[in-house]
Amino acid sequence: MYTELLGYIAAICTTAAFVPQVLKTYKTKSAKSLSLGMFLLFTAGIILWLIYGFIINEYPIIAANVVTLILAGLLIYFKLTYKN
Amino acid sequence: MYTELLGYIAAICTTAAFVPQVLKTYKTKSAKSLSLGMFLLFTAGIILWLIYGFIINEYPIIAANVVTLILAGLLIYFKLTYKN
Repeated sequence: MYTELLGYIAAICTTAAFVPQVLKTYKTKSAKSLSLGMFLLFTAGIILWLIYGFIINEYPIIAANVVTLILAGLLIYFKLTYKN
Repeated sequence: MYTELLGYIAAICTTAAFVPQVLKTYKTKSAKSLSLGMFLLFTAGIILWLIYGFIINEYPIIAANVVTLILAGLLIYFKLTYKN
């Protein structure tokens, strides 16, 4: 019970972490020191976690990874769009 | 069986993703567009995942999060050290 709650809080932290990065990148229009490789590899991992979540039918895993996928996707878009 | 393997590959991707970011930041000595908030929140989440892994005694969760913790910790150190 408490363990499951801990898992939810952990998932919220690792997902919400992308919000300040998305906001910062959007505001500064600078993605210079962001690694494209990082976000591509991360996104690949998130897609696999999502498939995993669907297979074991765990809604928290599905929900957390859908949100993370959108945020990481935005960062890849920014990285490819902003020139500096 | 295949599902577990999928989980492992997903974990390897989301952990390994930090390697290109650490290398890029180290080489360029620039962490300007990295969000400190992102890495602090992410690290908090990783520590919670680690506690979760210890409680449910799942070595893959423990191992993946120990590695991610080291890599994310390095990025926080870079962010605080490099001036631009």
